[in-house]
Amino acid sequence: MENIVVVGGDGFCGWPTSLHLSRIGFDVTIVDNLSRRRIDRELGARSLTPIAPIAQRLAAWKEVTGREIGFENIDAAQDYAALVELLQDLQPKAIVHFGEQRAAPYSMRGETEKRYTVDNNINATHNILTAVAALSLDTHVVHLGTMGVYGYGGDGLEIPEGYQQVKVTGDDGQEFEREILYPTNPGSVYHMTKSMDQLMFQFFAKNDGVRITDLHQGIVWGTQTSETKLDERLINRFDYDGDYGTVLNRFLMQAAVGHPLTVHGTGGQTCAFIHIRDTVRCIALAIANPPARGERVVIRNQMAETHRVRDLAALVSSMTGVDMAFVDNPRNEAAENDLRVSNQSFRALGLKPTLLAEGLLEETVDIAEKYVDRYRPSTIPAASIWTKANKPGIVKGVDEVSFPEAA
Amino acid sequence: MENIVVVGGDGFCGWPTSLHLSRIGFDVTIVDNLSRRRIDRELGARSLTPIAPIAQRLAAWKEVTGREIGFENIDAAQDYAALVELLQDLQPKAIVHFGEQRAAPYSMRGETEKRYTVDNNINATHNILTAVAALSLDTHVVHLGTMGVYGYGGDGLEIPEGYQQVKVTGDDGQEFEREILYPTNPGSVYHMTKSMDQLMFQFFAKNDGVRITDLHQGIVWGTQTSETKLDERLINRFDYDGDYGTVLNRFLMQAAVGHPLTVHGTGGQTCAFIHIRDTVRCIALAIANPPARGERVVIRNQMAETHRVRDLAALVSSMTGVDMAFVDNPRNEAAENDLRVSNQSFRALGLKPTLLAEGLLEETVDIAEKYVDRYRPSTIPAASIWTKANKPGIVKGVDEVSFPEAA
Repeated sequence: MENIVVVGGDGFCGWPTSLHLSRIGFDVTIVDNLSRRRIDRELGARSLTPIAPIAQRLAAWKEVTGREIGFENIDAAQDYAALVELLQDLQPKAIVHFGEQRAAPYSMRGETEKRYTVDNNINATHNILTAVAALSLDTHVVHLGTMGVYGYGGDGLEIPEGYQQVKVTGDDGQEFEREILYPTNPGSVYHMTKSMDQLMFQFFAKNDGVRITDLHQGIVWGTQTSETKLDERLINRFDYDGDYGTVLNRFLMQAAVGHPLTVHGTGGQTCAFIHIRDTVRCIALAIANPPARGERVVIRNQMAETHRVRDLAALVSSMTGVDMAFVDNPRNEAAENDLRVSNQSFRALGLKPTLLAEGLLEETVDIAEKYVDRYRPSTIPAASIWTKANKPGIVKGVDEVSFPEAA
Repeated sequence: MENIVVVGGDGFCGWPTSLHLSRIGFDVTIVDNLSRRRIDRELGARSLTPIAPIAQRLAAWKEVTGREIGFENIDAAQDYAALVELLQDLQPKAIVHFGEQRAAPYSMRGETEKRYTVDNNINATHNILTAVAALSLDTHVVHLGTMGVYGYGGDGLEIPEGYQQVKVTGDDGQEFEREILYPTNPGSVYHMTKSMDQLMFQFFAKNDGVRITDLHQGIVWGTQTSETKLDERLINRFDYDGDYGTVLNRFLMQAAVGHPLTVHGTGGQTCAFIHIRDTVRCIALAIANPPARGERVVIRNQMAETHRVRDLAALVSSMTGVDMAFVDNPRNEAAENDLRVSNQSFRALGLKPTLLAEGLLEETVDIAEKYVDRYRPSTIPAASIWTKANKPGIVKGVDEVSFPEAA
């Protein structure tokens, strides 16, 4: 039996990935310090869906499927010795690395959150790479990166998968081609850490021959996978707060309570989306298709489709009959951007993604409406401002919008 | 009077920079946790020159020049609150940031040193940037980067100053020009952290308007500046150990004790050099020429000339009559490389650098020979190996070379 370690396996992507990998036959061990649950308490937020404690989750999985998933409460950024001991012991085929603080707004709340995000994310990634190199493991490191490292320049290019062909003029005046890492342009401290991760992957692949796949993922939507649906104790997170809730979840939540769908700016930002069901499939595909030892980092864009935020809002609005409301944007970003993204890599491996138009109704009925009683209105407004120039009071709407109590 | 904070102001570049900035009229405060002295103790190494404790250094400076330099024992990577308080208090015109572990071999010794280098360097840089942004200071951050971020690809290009013009083919088949950060190719964990620093500078310049200069410095040689020469208690470090000693210092030390000059591999690696006297001048020039608020990061190559390692050895050999010896290379790098580097930026600001051919005799007589009695032969061999494939026993020479006792 092959071992897989899922770092961050209690989180939104990590949990359903752990279940999926367990179901398809791997011996899965979750490494998690439960930081995502701690941050929920810190923010006074909680998942709309009633997620069970990790011990209950694992017990339910065993009860329902007969399969065991291991759990180690290790902080990958801090507890290096424990991490090394575990990897030495398990000699995993792959480490799936979700062990990073993953909310851009949270990373921009203030000094403490910026510093936590950088310290945690960089040290977690570096510890994993250092441990794999030091133990001379043949382990494949599969990392959840983000589309956000590319920035959203809209410079007339379809965003390639990680690398870009460019022409450079040599000193002799002759042009020649080079392949480079796509120049990053991260929009938050969180995204910046993922750009920095890329440089660590490049180095450890080159210097130590570590086999690495970096998945540049779009915004994940949806809640359930076929595995998390098996029992309510296995249910996945649904975040709708101003920090961790993605734009689509906030629209769904607002619609469920009959509040206008708040669109930042003109809603002209185009984002890439993927359903959580496809996230877990992509991880399995990435594990099944590792780079060879000594090969460069494999980068795959993990996204299914792109939409403008206002079009998303319109889709939810048309489905639910709830109006849209435009408010100021707390982020430093272009008001409108175009975004085209290559996802040939996963398409070629056979991915047939679930699209928004197909899956959104299920999300509305089975999640947002079903659990609406657990809704906490105070957590929706985004409290993070990207720079001092965008401070509350200047950002109309962020402070002013009032949220209704749950029905 | 304008305040300047020098983070890492007790180190090899930081100390003479602090004195120079004090002499030309700034109110200098050194922030240092004295980690460089701690690492010396850890390695059983010490500067060939008898460096005085920091309190003595500062007292001597006051005695000799009448000028005061402040000192705060703050770990910029760990003691964020103390750093913020100091910056709030001083509102410095510039922060000169040398606060990073700066030896590539040390960063490759093992897991502990890799992890220390990443944790220290990334958090120090990020804390400084976060503090400047949070306090809304107009402070100019001047960072000591390294030529090592460029890698030594030898792809027929003079290395530009940080940015590169490239041509990209758009989806419509039309080529267009983009300016990008020169794609990095760091050769050690240490160099990797400086590549990662670049991404933080890019983000904080863009998002918070922090004014940043990043100096991509070559290998610094020489020991004394006009300020450190004023009194022996002001003398600067001369490192010759396998971790912190640069290649030139090791040759000078070996020559002083009559030991063959050990050249790694073919000695075909070409490196960029700059004298410590020019380092301090460059920092002063960088401070005098900051980017405007909101402008992109200014990147300047801080180097005077390039030489192949074997040519350096031949130069020292011809000057001292000591032979050369070729040993295996512990690093993962090309045996031979070409390196041409633009330094137009500092040339345009008036820098007229000291070249090796002019300054090497002084280094031999006034430093290596003068202090030869303090030589500790056991510290010369490089203990770091870049990968397991290069482990001792395979790397001939590194373990086998015996070093003579001092004369």
